[in-house]
Amino acid sequence: MRTDPVDGGGHDLRHHGDAEVRDDGSALVDLAVNVRTDTPPAWLRERIAASLSGLAAYPDGRAAREAVAARHGLPVERVLLTAGAAEAFVLLARALKVRRPVVVHPQFTEPEAALRDAGHMVDRVLLRESDGFRLDPAAVPEDADLVVIGNPTNPTSVLHPAAAVAGLARPGRTLVVDEAFMDAVPGEREALAGRTDVPGLVVLRSLTKTWGLAGLRIGYVLAAPRTVAELERAQPLWPVSTPALVAAEACTGPRALAEAAGAARRVAADRAYLVAGLREFTVRGVRVAEPAEGPFVLVRLPHAATVRGRLRALGYAVRRGDTFPGLDEEWLRLAVRGRETTDGFLSALGRALTSP
Amino acid sequence: MRTDPVDGGGHDLRHHGDAEVRDDGSALVDLAVNVRTDTPPAWLRERIAASLSGLAAYPDGRAAREAVAARHGLPVERVLLTAGAAEAFVLLARALKVRRPVVVHPQFTEPEAALRDAGHMVDRVLLRESDGFRLDPAAVPEDADLVVIGNPTNPTSVLHPAAAVAGLARPGRTLVVDEAFMDAVPGEREALAGRTDVPGLVVLRSLTKTWGLAGLRIGYVLAAPRTVAELERAQPLWPVSTPALVAAEACTGPRALAEAAGAARRVAADRAYLVAGLREFTVRGVRVAEPAEGPFVLVRLPHAATVRGRLRALGYAVRRGDTFPGLDEEWLRLAVRGRETTDGFLSALGRALTSP
Repeated sequence: MRTDPVDGGGHDLRHHGDAEVRDDGSALVDLAVNVRTDTPPAWLRERIAASLSGLAAYPDGRAAREAVAARHGLPVERVLLTAGAAEAFVLLARALKVRRPVVVHPQFTEPEAALRDAGHMVDRVLLRESDGFRLDPAAVPEDADLVVIGNPTNPTSVLHPAAAVAGLARPGRTLVVDEAFMDAVPGEREALAGRTDVPGLVVLRSLTKTWGLAGLRIGYVLAAPRTVAELERAQPLWPVSTPALVAAEACTGPRALAEAAGAARRVAADRAYLVAGLREFTVRGVRVAEPAEGPFVLVRLPHAATVRGRLRALGYAVRRGDTFPGLDEEWLRLAVRGRETTDGFLSALGRALTSP
Repeated sequence: MRTDPVDGGGHDLRHHGDAEVRDDGSALVDLAVNVRTDTPPAWLRERIAASLSGLAAYPDGRAAREAVAARHGLPVERVLLTAGAAEAFVLLARALKVRRPVVVHPQFTEPEAALRDAGHMVDRVLLRESDGFRLDPAAVPEDADLVVIGNPTNPTSVLHPAAAVAGLARPGRTLVVDEAFMDAVPGEREALAGRTDVPGLVVLRSLTKTWGLAGLRIGYVLAAPRTVAELERAQPLWPVSTPALVAAEACTGPRALAEAAGAARRVAADRAYLVAGLREFTVRGVRVAEPAEGPFVLVRLPHAATVRGRLRALGYAVRRGDTFPGLDEEWLRLAVRGRETTDGFLSALGRALTSP
């Protein structure tokens, strides 16, 4: 583990999984994008469709904000609805006074890209494979006044202990924890969402992955009221659309939470199935970053770029790992799918590894 | 006409018409919000509803961008899709290097609010009633490097000649023309959208008003490729939702343009009907800012706040004018509606003006 300055070149921070399934990729089985399959569910689509007759009115976010606050047991002043977590990254980068931002990598690249686009110099803490990509809090520079970390982390699938993450808090420091995939962890057991005892804590949440709402742009920020007010001032007027607000309200109700909990248990079982299958390829150099706790796994294998191309020819899209700082061209990220899809994928992987 | 520094107090720049019909206002006949009634049309709702089954995929804005570019005869590099014009104002305020921004008032207050929130000192050019709120280009300070003007202007309903607006262009100046209501002007006859011969020109367009998509957050910017690239860098990833992209594509096709042209002709007729009715109250001190060319009219009358309250009690919501810099508590803005609604409103206005 070490601290690196921005390297500027090296990694395409603006590459995302959706690019792997665009255009000619539409016929591919998608293990590249971390969105749950068969989503949004029909009941949610119907709720959203019902909102379309009210589109002539400007969005009124109050009910959705209250629903999200209630879901986390927080007052509404601690909640900010955003047009996806992506908007939250831009708001954090542009609205807060920051001198020395640090991003813990490998992780989702958009926070660093947003900080750089806002003119910041960004320092990186690179977690290492030899440490299991686990967080060593001592590696984070003491004078960092903004620290960004994902939990569970995309793409490593590592779930950091809540206490270790909370331990990064310091007076005068904003601690941003991207919990976009936490609702895929049974019991959300290392979540900091809802905590008010961690100074400077900013938790980001997404409804995109579990609910299949990537196209709708909806997420939210949980933070101290003063921080929420600062971010809100930098938002456009009416930042979240009416259909997205309706979805946020629907996805934070008891029925939805029960459905998400069930989905999280299925993810755990399907991931175990995938990892067991991948272990059969250990002798051919395939290694899984473990323990994986998110709805995706990170895999190291020789000639990964070649294997990825062959998988594509065999009908499977997987996510390249080399655009993540701290990883190289030996890594691939695989979305956890149902057993049938995984069986087909593992069979294709066997061929991709052996073919000349 | 004169140039004023920011007054800070005075006007609530963040007051908008939607606040006048919220909560207890839902039972009111709405002449406060400038969105066409009976929108979105059924064919458009169906197009949007059909997009909901694809929400699990991240938005892909390419087709919509091409459709908008084709509608204005421009290359795609000159088009930026935004989450409503409101997002465009924030991008302009935060992404461009600006030293001396000037806003031509009275106009929509959000551009100035966004500039101030981004830390800028904003100078105002105040057009005067005695000039018919017409633009005097000489009143704009020569050293302004960002000038914002609306055409047709909300709330005055004045349509400035395209040549006069284009004449504000200067080397090193960004000229922002908010054409959010231009598609309600038959033939869009003073439009600058599509022009590439005006240096520094940035045109903002909205699909909200004519198509009843205020709840969906969709608009666009037309500008030089370099400016588009600068604004795009400050946008979040995936800034516009899939349903909004589908709507943008649908609303820029030939069928939609023909429907919008028909709606613009109806607006002209309905506005003439409303203005004729208002003239009957001339003897009681009611004056209409003329010629009105937008889908709303600005009216001056004694004790406007009292009349507005009485109209509310009689079931009609109208927009207060005093939150617009350059206007005071004597002004009201009225949305153009169909004849039946206008008849009812004029009758209520007669009672509101006379009751003790």
